[in-house]
Amino acid sequence: MKKRKENNEGSRLKIIPLGGLEQIGMNITAFEYEDSIIVVDCGLSFPADDMLGIDLVIPDVTYLKNNIDRVKGIVITHGHEDHIGALPYILKEMNVPVYATRLTMGIIEHKLTEHELMRTTKRKVVKFGQSINLGQFRVEFIRTNHSIVDAAALAIYSPAGIVVHTGDFKVDYTPVYGDAIDLQRFAELGKKGVLALLCDSTNAERPGFTPSEKTVGKAFDTLFSEHRNTRIFVATFASNVDRVQQIINTAYKFGRKVCVEGRSMVNIIDTAINLECISIPENTLIDIDQMKNYPPEQQVIITTGSQGESMAALSRMANNMHRKITIGAGDTVIFSSHPIPGNEKAVTKIINELLRKGADVVFQDTHVSGHACQEEIKLIYALTRPKYSVPVHGEYKHLTAQAKIAESLGIEKDHIFILSSGDILELSEEEDAKITGKVPTGGILVDGLGVGDVGNVVLRDRQHLAEDGILIVVMSLEKESGELIAGPDIVSRGFVYVRESDELIEEARMTVDEALQNCLDRGITDWGKLKSVTKDVLGEYVWKKTKRRPMILPIIMEI
Amino acid sequence: MKKRKENNEGSRLKIIPLGGLEQIGMNITAFEYEDSIIVVDCGLSFPADDMLGIDLVIPDVTYLKNNIDRVKGIVITHGHEDHIGALPYILKEMNVPVYATRLTMGIIEHKLTEHELMRTTKRKVVKFGQSINLGQFRVEFIRTNHSIVDAAALAIYSPAGIVVHTGDFKVDYTPVYGDAIDLQRFAELGKKGVLALLCDSTNAERPGFTPSEKTVGKAFDTLFSEHRNTRIFVATFASNVDRVQQIINTAYKFGRKVCVEGRSMVNIIDTAINLECISIPENTLIDIDQMKNYPPEQQVIITTGSQGESMAALSRMANNMHRKITIGAGDTVIFSSHPIPGNEKAVTKIINELLRKGADVVFQDTHVSGHACQEEIKLIYALTRPKYSVPVHGEYKHLTAQAKIAESLGIEKDHIFILSSGDILELSEEEDAKITGKVPTGGILVDGLGVGDVGNVVLRDRQHLAEDGILIVVMSLEKESGELIAGPDIVSRGFVYVRESDELIEEARMTVDEALQNCLDRGITDWGKLKSVTKDVLGEYVWKKTKRRPMILPIIMEI
Repeated sequence: MKKRKENNEGSRLKIIPLGGLEQIGMNITAFEYEDSIIVVDCGLSFPADDMLGIDLVIPDVTYLKNNIDRVKGIVITHGHEDHIGALPYILKEMNVPVYATRLTMGIIEHKLTEHELMRTTKRKVVKFGQSINLGQFRVEFIRTNHSIVDAAALAIYSPAGIVVHTGDFKVDYTPVYGDAIDLQRFAELGKKGVLALLCDSTNAERPGFTPSEKTVGKAFDTLFSEHRNTRIFVATFASNVDRVQQIINTAYKFGRKVCVEGRSMVNIIDTAINLECISIPENTLIDIDQMKNYPPEQQVIITTGSQGESMAALSRMANNMHRKITIGAGDTVIFSSHPIPGNEKAVTKIINELLRKGADVVFQDTHVSGHACQEEIKLIYALTRPKYSVPVHGEYKHLTAQAKIAESLGIEKDHIFILSSGDILELSEEEDAKITGKVPTGGILVDGLGVGDVGNVVLRDRQHLAEDGILIVVMSLEKESGELIAGPDIVSRGFVYVRESDELIEEARMTVDEALQNCLDRGITDWGKLKSVTKDVLGEYVWKKTKRRPMILPIIMEI
Repeated sequence: MKKRKENNEGSRLKIIPLGGLEQIGMNITAFEYEDSIIVVDCGLSFPADDMLGIDLVIPDVTYLKNNIDRVKGIVITHGHEDHIGALPYILKEMNVPVYATRLTMGIIEHKLTEHELMRTTKRKVVKFGQSINLGQFRVEFIRTNHSIVDAAALAIYSPAGIVVHTGDFKVDYTPVYGDAIDLQRFAELGKKGVLALLCDSTNAERPGFTPSEKTVGKAFDTLFSEHRNTRIFVATFASNVDRVQQIINTAYKFGRKVCVEGRSMVNIIDTAINLECISIPENTLIDIDQMKNYPPEQQVIITTGSQGESMAALSRMANNMHRKITIGAGDTVIFSSHPIPGNEKAVTKIINELLRKGADVVFQDTHVSGHACQEEIKLIYALTRPKYSVPVHGEYKHLTAQAKIAESLGIEKDHIFILSSGDILELSEEEDAKITGKVPTGGILVDGLGVGDVGNVVLRDRQHLAEDGILIVVMSLEKESGELIAGPDIVSRGFVYVRESDELIEEARMTVDEALQNCLDRGITDWGKLKSVTKDVLGEYVWKKTKRRPMILPIIMEI
């Protein structure tokens, strides 16, 4: 209280999401109190459909860089890409310590090794129930359940009060590995008094409860008993260790050997084995080269590619592009996954391909979500009884769905904050919370080695090029006289099949030539003018003839 | 029988799908007996994701053009784009008569008018139960139900036997307009003996029955009574006249005026009104300009854009880009549709946008499919008892799903044919059916005014340009000496933001310059060689620096 009076500005808790609220992905939130800033998660997002050629998108952390002396550390809730994927990029710009649970840290360390950041990055593995002190904050890790092992919620203690951040979670009373979500701790925190709850909104539109991961195990038992005489492939998410565990359990029960295919899955399973997050019966996991020693009905291949990714192991095995395995007649392929929105067509494509190859495709009953549905969200609200509700992790429709739930539980409308990235939400025990400003945010595009060197101009050009291709007009002008001594020549790419369009291109060339001569005859030699005349004349001609608008690029050389 | 012996080749019935079996869309099938060919449907398909810049895709009808003297006509089952959309393009290449039911013909005539084909195209409206004679064929139109009024199945009588083609259908015992599907006629045909059944596979993966269109009307009643105090928007498919009818019925019941927005919907509703396929209570349908005379709670706007199409009326109204209506706080938007696979993200985007504007979005209970589910498919098989089963209308997974149904009904595996486009399936009463050959097929890309002038080369270029942009290297060579007198200069588009990459581009230029001088010094002046050196050197440099592979286009000018 004393402090607060001395420094009115700094003595409130600020919550500043730097991403994650406009889409699924790129989760990163800053918590700030006076001289201390902590960052929760540091995820990437995958490029939107119109971000042509982009590999991934990372958050703009200008605000953090501008306040780097106050940033105490990055706290990670779990090891999914949308929570850790931007870490190597951000750590190159600001070297701060990273805190996470065991498997999460294992996955992070794999990334840091690839980016040669292990030596310079301070890391600390935190146990559930354990707290870390970060400036004026104390952060406690609370066990939850999710589609990856070792997921944590966070209790963030600040002088202004306690904030609970659920991370991505579900309530699984019978998890495959480890214990159920620590509901008692959520209740204790609620008893102490929770200032604000930041809760996962992904499934806030769905009524009821998400089923336990264990229900999937039973489904595998049934499917394996129905397909005793075929080789079995199971496609699932690379990071779902519990899912792999259950497939292995069922395989073992049915006397099958298991092989894991797909680089990302192999990496995570290796990490999980090292950390003993997965337990594999002896002689069950075998190398792909040993497969040939067993008949098909004693084989199970667990693979990546359940989202129809064209370069993943499943696609390569279906399209005879895999160096060791080809899926064909007599094989059974189980999709232990749902298509992520946007991937539906790609998934359908691989299913059609598999069926065409003669494989039996099973697409049912072997997936459950890792996110809380409405009743689970209500449970967390009921246990924590937060003063303020801040729905996180989702698109606008998910956030509003959670806001409706919060309202239905009696939280007043003006205590519910649907934030946008960059909003500064200020909270204290005493005064009403409010949004007091905005920090710069955005997505920085990563393309190959380039981070941020592709922006809107380049993207617009790529979209333009993709739509109707390009017409390049080259010409040489004599330096002194300004006379046209070569060209104009027209070269096109992605516009029209040139061999069958000689006439069109030649007529276009003559049209440009005429217009240019006309300019030069009138003494116009300004390059800008000549280029704009070329663009106009050629653009109009091409539109009239084809109803297309290729990019037109005049290039003048001076001799 | 006599004929058959005289001409062994010609006396079998050939079924030749020219599209529609690799994807949903582009439905067109030829039926051939001796000197007679008839064509069923003539649809377009929408471009796949990798067909950059393409507007639509039409079938390659080379086979029909090569046999034009035998083509007796095109018979259309119903008025959806995937069944009629290619007609204007195909009719420009081969002028044959078109046969269709009333509303279907109305929609076709609208297209023909746009393409100035009305005068030259022979058309005949056919009633349900009526037959037309086309060479050795007789084609009977049978009433079915679908998500568009006046959909027909066809009984195709040939000397080799009767083929039943269901078109797109569902079994709706209580349709909104007209009568239920003529199941008795299917039964009569079955009694006579059906050689082959070509049946809609779209929903063959779904168990049970598709609900009646009328169930949607009840849902509208409920929703309208729950939203008495707001303006209501309903987004649905432009061609679903019955859906529009029901929305109007409910609006009338609740004392609201109705306005229809979106060019394609206005066109079809106009046609439906003219043909009395829709009945609108007096003073219910009003013009958009009259809207202002009524309070919001007395308005209903029926609109296109339910698939998230960015240029459709709904998107424009949500984004303040519509000249008369803006959707905002207090409005209710009902989606009377499901996302077509591939459109999920676009639909989500518009929903988020509407919610952000403060509108209430309802996405439930107001849509039913227009296609038969498994039990309806079984019913048609049970009534017609075909000797051969030929699943149509679907991707491979849908076709195999129907094949499984046919098998479960006792049709032998070798009497079920999953065809590919171009397959020639030969059938007769006496001998076993078999695939005897293949005709050329494919999709012809339409881009602006160009039909078929964009092929694989152009598409590959567009994909390449979209991925990493283009680097253009221009240089001028002296004619006689072969000396480099200007350039090399590098111009880029869609590669990297140039202002911040001066150094990269300049270093690239120097690398190319050096390599070229090196060639010229060694007396190499062959343009092909100079270009390939430029590509190699620059490509390698750029890959090393950026891990990108832009298109590299060297252009040499001769002075």
